[in-house]
Amino acid sequence: MPLWYNEEQTEGISFGIKIKEQIFSEVSPYQTIEIYDTYECGKLFTLDGLVMLTEKDEFIYHDMIVHVPMAVKRDVKNVLVIGGGDGGTVRELTRYDSIEKIDMVEIDERVVRASQEHLPFTASQLTDNRVNLFFDDGIVYVKNAQHSMYDLIIVDSTDPIGPGEGLFTKEFYDQCYRILTDDGILINQHESPFYPQFSKEMMRAHNKIKKTFPISMVYQAHIPTYPSGHWLFGFSSKKLHPLKDVNSKEWEKLNLKTKYYNSDLHIGCFALPTYVIDMLE
Amino acid sequence: MPLWYNEEQTEGISFGIKIKEQIFSEVSPYQTIEIYDTYECGKLFTLDGLVMLTEKDEFIYHDMIVHVPMAVKRDVKNVLVIGGGDGGTVRELTRYDSIEKIDMVEIDERVVRASQEHLPFTASQLTDNRVNLFFDDGIVYVKNAQHSMYDLIIVDSTDPIGPGEGLFTKEFYDQCYRILTDDGILINQHESPFYPQFSKEMMRAHNKIKKTFPISMVYQAHIPTYPSGHWLFGFSSKKLHPLKDVNSKEWEKLNLKTKYYNSDLHIGCFALPTYVIDMLE
Repeated sequence: MPLWYNEEQTEGISFGIKIKEQIFSEVSPYQTIEIYDTYECGKLFTLDGLVMLTEKDEFIYHDMIVHVPMAVKRDVKNVLVIGGGDGGTVRELTRYDSIEKIDMVEIDERVVRASQEHLPFTASQLTDNRVNLFFDDGIVYVKNAQHSMYDLIIVDSTDPIGPGEGLFTKEFYDQCYRILTDDGILINQHESPFYPQFSKEMMRAHNKIKKTFPISMVYQAHIPTYPSGHWLFGFSSKKLHPLKDVNSKEWEKLNLKTKYYNSDLHIGCFALPTYVIDMLE
Repeated sequence: MPLWYNEEQTEGISFGIKIKEQIFSEVSPYQTIEIYDTYECGKLFTLDGLVMLTEKDEFIYHDMIVHVPMAVKRDVKNVLVIGGGDGGTVRELTRYDSIEKIDMVEIDERVVRASQEHLPFTASQLTDNRVNLFFDDGIVYVKNAQHSMYDLIIVDSTDPIGPGEGLFTKEFYDQCYRILTDDGILINQHESPFYPQFSKEMMRAHNKIKKTFPISMVYQAHIPTYPSGHWLFGFSSKKLHPLKDVNSKEWEKLNLKTKYYNSDLHIGCFALPTYVIDMLE
């Protein structure tokens, strides 16, 4: 009897992945962590029964959450990653020699340890000597962090239900603003526009974030294993504009091989469908 | 006990939509036609157990298959639609006053009649007096059609398995070339890049089509109820380039309200991910 991982992405939509075996399962103080091996998507990592990543499409999410801001601000030295326990965001960041320090604040140490054991394809660079791991609440961390400390903050969080909830508040965005440098950038995973339960959260988050940041835009990617496959990211900054200030030629000189991101797509991913623009306004 | 429509999109991936009731079911000489009412996506129309459209996201597919070429060639008069029995492609075409004639060749009359009865939101304009319905094999139709008859051909077909198969051959593309005007455009649904069983067909189709047409490009859309949600369209033409020759200002003057397509997205949708570009080369 074949086993299927089945996620009810909404009350009326389900998504299933046929699994070979369950590799890991643990109830941490924060959530249920599970890792499977699958036929179609390689390793599958879930929290509380929701897909966080699969080995087959994680490159899309991690390309888009890292390379978009890195092509805009080319002198990033200090980065703060909030969440991101699987390590994929850090992996992409460590490809930039210009980066001197990556502070990663993940509330659940068990996610990091499970990833290091079972998801080496994302977690391998967590041991890079520029990386400092803090197992702490991101909300508390940003409150206590010094003024103008970071050039780039990446919020690589779960949905705004459960442990991720406080990362979608006005107070949190204000603290991010405070600890960013004058031309700093905040990137956050921004939910999805298609099914109402996600688009509601997307609109709420966007309405709050644009009260804090003078520049606040949204870009999109095709992430097949996330609900609807249409996922959004927020690009917020004090000064830099993601299209007017992008430095594609310089970025291309770095010669980073990326499987999803490229300079044309950098422009294209900000061209949103009309119904999404209407929701954001 | 709630009922779910479940589609195995690949051997290892399933997609489910919770249904209220089945509205229509018929085995035609070509395929099994089914229509359901669903909780999340409104009406659902399937052929041989594969999603053709849902009421919730059909606007994305039909916007992209029609408005992209119509913004490039602004004097389209004669259009050929192959397939498209649900009527959504014709519905979008009839919004252009410049179009004088739309010949639609659908192999399966039962699809058209079922759509007219149960899917009025797509089929309503099939009675427009510019529309001529032919219940015929598209391959035979193009073979018998006169030289340089059409400004635009839209192939709105099923996958290249079953009745749609012959619409993905070199012979068919050659005939399309022959019956297009000197600056004519061929648009076809072009499968998906993500799961190998679809990307294989996409690469095969693209390799054939680019042998026939000097300009042959691919663009993408987020269609959540199709496998992976990442769907492609082919833009092939004798002369007109989809980006260099697009006439966005003129198109905007028409003041057509569209929920997905817009002029920025016209440019953006041709910016493909690197892994897709690699597959197409």
